Amino acid sequence: MRILILGGDGYLGWPTAMRFSARGHEVTVVDNFSRRRWHTDNSTDSLTPIRSLADRIEAWREVSGNEIRSFVGSMEDAEFIERVLSKTLPEAIVHYAEQPSAPYSMRSREAAVETQYTNVIGTLNLLFAIRDQVPDCHLVKLGTMGEYGTPDIDIEEGFIEIEHKGRSDTLPFPKMPGSLYHLSKVHDSHNVHFACRIWGLRATDLNQGVVYGIETEESAEDERLITRFDYDEYFGTVLNRFCVQAVIGHPLTVYGEGGQTRGFLNIRDTLQCVELAVANPAELGEFRVFNQFTEQFSVAELAELVKRSGEQMGHGVEVRSFPNPRIEAEQHYYNATNTKLIDLGLKPHLLGEELVRSMLRIIERHRDRVIERAILPTTRWMPGELERPEVEAMRAGRRPRQGIE
Amino acid sequence: MRILILGGDGYLGWPTAMRFSARGHEVTVVDNFSRRRWHTDNSTDSLTPIRSLADRIEAWREVSGNEIRSFVGSMEDAEFIERVLSKTLPEAIVHYAEQPSAPYSMRSREAAVETQYTNVIGTLNLLFAIRDQVPDCHLVKLGTMGEYGTPDIDIEEGFIEIEHKGRSDTLPFPKMPGSLYHLSKVHDSHNVHFACRIWGLRATDLNQGVVYGIETEESAEDERLITRFDYDEYFGTVLNRFCVQAVIGHPLTVYGEGGQTRGFLNIRDTLQCVELAVANPAELGEFRVFNQFTEQFSVAELAELVKRSGEQMGHGVEVRSFPNPRIEAEQHYYNATNTKLIDLGLKPHLLGEELVRSMLRIIERHRDRVIERAILPTTRWMPGELERPEVEAMRAGRRPRQGIE
Repeated sequence: MRILILGGDGYLGWPTAMRFSARGHEVTVVDNFSRRRWHTDNSTDSLTPIRSLADRIEAWREVSGNEIRSFVGSMEDAEFIERVLSKTLPEAIVHYAEQPSAPYSMRSREAAVETQYTNVIGTLNLLFAIRDQVPDCHLVKLGTMGEYGTPDIDIEEGFIEIEHKGRSDTLPFPKMPGSLYHLSKVHDSHNVHFACRIWGLRATDLNQGVVYGIETEESAEDERLITRFDYDEYFGTVLNRFCVQAVIGHPLTVYGEGGQTRGFLNIRDTLQCVELAVANPAELGEFRVFNQFTEQFSVAELAELVKRSGEQMGHGVEVRSFPNPRIEAEQHYYNATNTKLIDLGLKPHLLGEELVRSMLRIIERHRDRVIERAILPTTRWMPGELERPEVEAMRAGRRPRQGIE
Repeated sequence: MRILILGGDGYLGWPTAMRFSARGHEVTVVDNFSRRRWHTDNSTDSLTPIRSLADRIEAWREVSGNEIRSFVGSMEDAEFIERVLSKTLPEAIVHYAEQPSAPYSMRSREAAVETQYTNVIGTLNLLFAIRDQVPDCHLVKLGTMGEYGTPDIDIEEGFIEIEHKGRSDTLPFPKMPGSLYHLSKVHDSHNVHFACRIWGLRATDLNQGVVYGIETEESAEDERLITRFDYDEYFGTVLNRFCVQAVIGHPLTVYGEGGQTRGFLNIRDTLQCVELAVANPAELGEFRVFNQFTEQFSVAELAELVKRSGEQMGHGVEVRSFPNPRIEAEQHYYNATNTKLIDLGLKPHLLGEELVRSMLRIIERHRDRVIERAILPTTRWMPGELERPEVEAMRAGRRPRQGIE
């Protein structure tokens, strides 16, 4: 198949590109390197020493004998996207090309506008380009479980049958997202659904949980193929952050009570899910939603798991509650359905101490690259709520590691 | 009260400004004249010969003795909006400043992007400006009944209690809007709701039905105060369009079967509703949704009403079904709740032949201003669906009026 990976230089995009290329598909990646740019702007970086896109593509050619094509440009540039589609005529598009961070979207008005502009207008441009260039193409769009928020009822996969005053209908599941980033994904979902209803496009919205892990089958073959690994307040997801904190001797930063429960999955399962979605496309006119996670955990449970695993490897790990920079329920009901990908054949890699230890081992190899300044949260959902003294107290609470600082 | 009217040069914005000014409030209007510009771009115009904003304000001063202040600028300009709020310190903001047309949003990718950018980013800028400048201010935001679409269950006011698998929660009513414009309003609603939940702002979302009518109490006092009246395919709402068609002898353009049912209200009731919302503000942190319409009609019912009323005045009126340029259900269940504004004291002006005849009389006064070219729909929800021959057939079907053409 001809497959286009939008955001193909990213944490998930690059491993996805290699996976489809390894399976013999004709793969093209598109990226504008905004993640690399945001890191430069913040004086942060990936823990893993990732190569440039051109070097990665060359290394992949050496290792696999397969060619990955690339285009450099932005989703906001409608004519660029249209040109890429008309040149590559993809049968499937995997769309990761968005600003993916909740705290980034909450740091300022400018960042909020950038996030909603990049994500919503970028996806809107893509929908028009698909309609006009490749209307049969299957769009596999990365959404997030965070679109649902934490309702007091079970979360279904995109739609819910509602009985009301003696009648019933199956309607989009109501959304109560927790950040302006998550809102951009809600907006996207509504726009993509519309394009399927009105223009007869086909799309799968993958409402993904929180991803953890570093290595995939392909990236393990050559160190030049490693994907990025973020642990900073903006782009680091919670388990990845905890693992870095455990290795450098920083208290694990549990926000508030730690009862926040979410769906999680291994990066290897992200690749499986995307493969399953592409191999089993939606029908023309269909907007399909899969909840893409394998297990639910609370933040406190994850912290305990990292503590146990770290201590097995000789790290002294402290779990500490920090003032929550977000506004969110810290104890709540959470039960989300995730059977559709299982029904298609997903075989989950479950989370356990062995998996965490394997992450800690890779992090240890790169511990000298850790930028400690980037770890504590500075972005607050409610400006003025966490004032300077509290941040200072948080910083003071950081236990210096022996011998390194 | 200090009241800011965003979009204060528009069909509803200008009458709203006069109403609050007449009641003794301190009124400021903001507009960037985009509606006037869009008309210029399309070689169309308001049926009524509206004055410039400065002339209107001067005429209002002469008539009422009251001063309305104005700022010219765009919602997309975040710093402008922030400046206006810091200078005027409004206690209530009535926000009409959006691209309000479904067909306009569907005419091209550029128009779709313009619509979602103007509306979503404009409102996002406003939310940040309120948070930072006037956090206690009550935002009265114009939404639309079109956000809900036509579900097979009763439509509630913004939220619905859902029982599911033995649990229950009250959640945002699911949205299935019918155009990229309506989607922009859905995005706005989610963003405004978030700002109330997270930042503690207060907002009322007025999910308004289709407005008809020309005259309000204040505009009737002096012809220089008349508001705009659009009848073109982009900005003309259905009953207003039918009335112009009846006067010029054009067949009433019913799209498809005409079973499309919607909520409607008189422009005089829009003013009542906005006054009631401002006089009874939401609580801090509250996001309140009112369904703002007074009666439900199908398009076919409206066409018959205009035909009867027109014929009473000696117009020969033909009702004709045209190929539907939109993709929408032409027969469907529709029952929407609208008790909240009634509970606050709304006294509806109901639609009848007398009201239609009064509209027809005003239109007759301005019939020489009608631009007939602007009447037939050229924008299609599904490009390529209505091809040229059909458009030609539609044009050929237009019956020339005696003596005028």
